[in-house]
Formats: sequence, C-alpha cells, structure tokens
Amino acid sequence: MRYAVLGTGMVGRTLAAKLVASGYEVTVGTREVADTLARETADAMGNPPYRQWQQQNPQVGLASFADAAAGAQVVVAALSGTGALAALRAAGAANLAGKTLIDVSNPLDFSAGFPPRLDPVDTDSLGERIQREFPEAKVVKTLNTVTAAVMVDPARVPGAHSIFVSGEDALAKQTVRALLEEFGWPAEEIVDLGGIESARGTEMYLRLWLTMMGAFGTADFNIHVQRAR
Amino acid sequence: MRYAVLGTGMVGRTLAAKLVASGYEVTVGTREVADTLARETADAMGNPPYRQWQQQNPQVGLASFADAAAGAQVVVAALSGTGALAALRAAGAANLAGKTLIDVSNPLDFSAGFPPRLDPVDTDSLGERIQREFPEAKVVKTLNTVTAAVMVDPARVPGAHSIFVSGEDALAKQTVRALLEEFGWPAEEIVDLGGIESARGTEMYLRLWLTMMGAFGTADFNIHVQRAR
Repeated sequence: MRYAVLGTGMVGRTLAAKLVASGYEVTVGTREVADTLARETADAMGNPPYRQWQQQNPQVGLASFADAAAGAQVVVAALSGTGALAALRAAGAANLAGKTLIDVSNPLDFSAGFPPRLDPVDTDSLGERIQREFPEAKVVKTLNTVTAAVMVDPARVPGAHSIFVSGEDALAKQTVRALLEEFGWPAEEIVDLGGIESARGTEMYLRLWLTMMGAFGTADFNIHVQRAR
Repeated sequence: MRYAVLGTGMVGRTLAAKLVASGYEVTVGTREVADTLARETADAMGNPPYRQWQQQNPQVGLASFADAAAGAQVVVAALSGTGALAALRAAGAANLAGKTLIDVSNPLDFSAGFPPRLDPVDTDSLGERIQREFPEAKVVKTLNTVTAAVMVDPARVPGAHSIFVSGEDALAKQTVRALLEEFGWPAEEIVDLGGIESARGTEMYLRLWLTMMGAFGTADFNIHVQRAR
C-alpha cells in the first residue's frame, strides 16, 4: 500500500515515520518541494527543519501535494486547519477521487493567539468541508483527538483509551480501522461515531483537549469511553 | 446546608431528589410557582407534570427563583441554556452574592432542531457569562458532561470515569468536590480544569456527547481521563 501524507509538520512527520516503519511506501506532500528543503530554521511550531528530519528518515519520499497524492492509494491529510482545503485543492480532486482520505487535521485558528479558535465550529466541521469539496474522496476523520506521538503509539498513555472514526464510506472506515490496529489501537477501543457529520463532535472536543493539556502540563493523555456493554 | 435548585426539568428534579436523600434541605426554584403547579401535561422534554413529581418528593420545597435563592446557602443552576441568565436575573444578584453557584447547565439551543447549536461557543461559555453577570457569586461549572441520572449515580456507568470542575474560587470548588464525592464520584476522578474559562472545554464537549448518545443509543456513558500519574 502506498501512502501520501500531506503536511510536513510534526503530525505529518510522525505519521510518515510510523507508516514506513510499518512497511508501507510513503511520500510526504508539500506545497513546494524546493522551499521545504531550503528551509534552515525551525517552523512556527518549533519543529526542526524538514531537511534535517528527512536525513533521519531517508525512506520517506517528498513530492508536491499533487504528485504525492497521485502516486498513493491512501492519502492522509495532516494539515493545519487554516491550510487544509488549499492544500487538498493543490493535491487535486482527480488525485483524491476514489481514495480513502484520512483527515487527522483540526480546524484550529491561531491568528488571535492561544487558545486557538475553531473555524468552522458547531454547525459545520473541517471533515465535512473536505468531504463536500471532494465528494469522490472517501473521507474518514480520525486520530484528531490525540497528540501526534499518541496517534502512532497509544501505549504512551496507560490503561484503556479510545479513538474515534467518522465517515460515510464503510469500506474506507474498515481500511482505517485496520491501520489503527496496526498502530496499536485495540479493536474494541475504536469507536465508530457514524457519518462525517460526527466529526463536529471530535473537532469541538479539541477545546476540552487543549484545556486538559494546559491543566495537566502534558499532551500524553486521552479519554476512554465508558459504557455498559 | 440549604440548597436551592433552580429549574424544574429532569436535571433539577434529579439533583433535588438526590440532595434530599443526602439529608439536605432543598427548595426548587421556578419562575411562577402557581404556573408550575397548574401544569397538567408533560413538558417539552417529555417530563411528567411537576406536581406529580412533587407528590412523590414531598420533602422538596418549591418557591420562586428569588425566594429559593434567598433561603439557600448553595444554589444549583439546572436551567436550560437559553433560559439560564434570565432565571438567574430573576433569582437576583443579591440572593446569589457570596454563595457557591453550581452551574450544571449547557448552552444548548434547540430552536433550529436536533442536534442543538451551542450558544455561546468557542470564544465564550455560559459558565463565564454567568460569572461575569454575577461577579459576587462563586460559580463552579460541573456535572454538565453527563446525563442527569449519572450525575447523582456515577455507578450507572461501569468502571472508572471522570467529572470536571471549573471555577475561580478555590473554596467553592472544595465545596463542590465534597458534594460530588457524596454523590459517589471518587476523589481521584474529579478533574479540576482551572478557572471558569475552562467551562468552554466541557460545554463544547457536549457536541461529542450528543454524537455518542446517538451512536450508542443510550445516555448512560461517560469518559475517563487517562494519563500518566
């Protein structure tokens, strides 16, 4: 299986490294390959230059959004909330059509400082916006409720804890479930919330997640859904 | 300790009954006592007439918002999101001043159908609005993340699960913690999120809660916060 991971930030890097370690071919997608490789300073979130990371992860390819998506069977959107739709437009609807599009992004807008605002919020979600704009892609929202390190290594958080999936396509959700299990998520902790509209729930949960991160002083936490079985 | 429970809906009734069972004096507050007792049909949420409930709970008093609040040492706001501020204005700032005001309400607006919208959302919360409008009250947001029956009987949900508190006043939060423990919440599951602004987190979580209720077909669930200790 060939994966494209759109986004060169910490989330994209973490997912790309894990996918390679799991035996997949992975190409990271970026706006301008030359610009990404030319950067010599840390990015806005404090991540070291991509070129440095690439040297430590030589198996991960780097290509334009469009080339990465075109060559992949599954596409992962690991994009900033404010840049996600533009990046997917650059990837191109034809290169996403018919493919599972795993959206792990959150619609966080840091333009007014911290805590970030959510945009959209309440009556729409980024997951829905992506699905509406790319109706031939099979969008599955998942992993957006945990920090990058926990996404690919749930054992960082002790005990049982849950991860959500939202999407319209049952087969695409099956693909994502299998991947989540490869990442270490127990099958019984993968909570199917329903269609892509349910992404509103997990995106809006981010405000509580940010609050807890502040209160706990760490991002290594998660929630477990407890219910009668 | 004398409690006022403002609100005659299912949440108010459930909390009032539990507080009486715990040995407290409880007066439910309502807009117009005569109107509340005259109602002979189920309310908009399908709850049976208040008078019927009162006959089964004769120890619970009923008074106007103002009289209930005036006679209480602790006030519980178990109000609809759209009616909460008006009800608290009717209770009167002087009758709330210096008192712990436990806000269990959620700012749900059902005027456009289901799922309800949140108002306010993202950049403000109902908990903050209440604290701003009644600066002499000691507002503590809690219990708004679980269904009424679970609020007062956490054992309805199996295993460990968490409840949040948000508020500015440390002593008021201690009062609330003690009450939550009386309700059956283990001390280690009471998560202090910080000041009242953190109510944004638990109020916005409601969207995920509503989504899960739909997916699970029951309101008897909750989340457990898992983190390294």
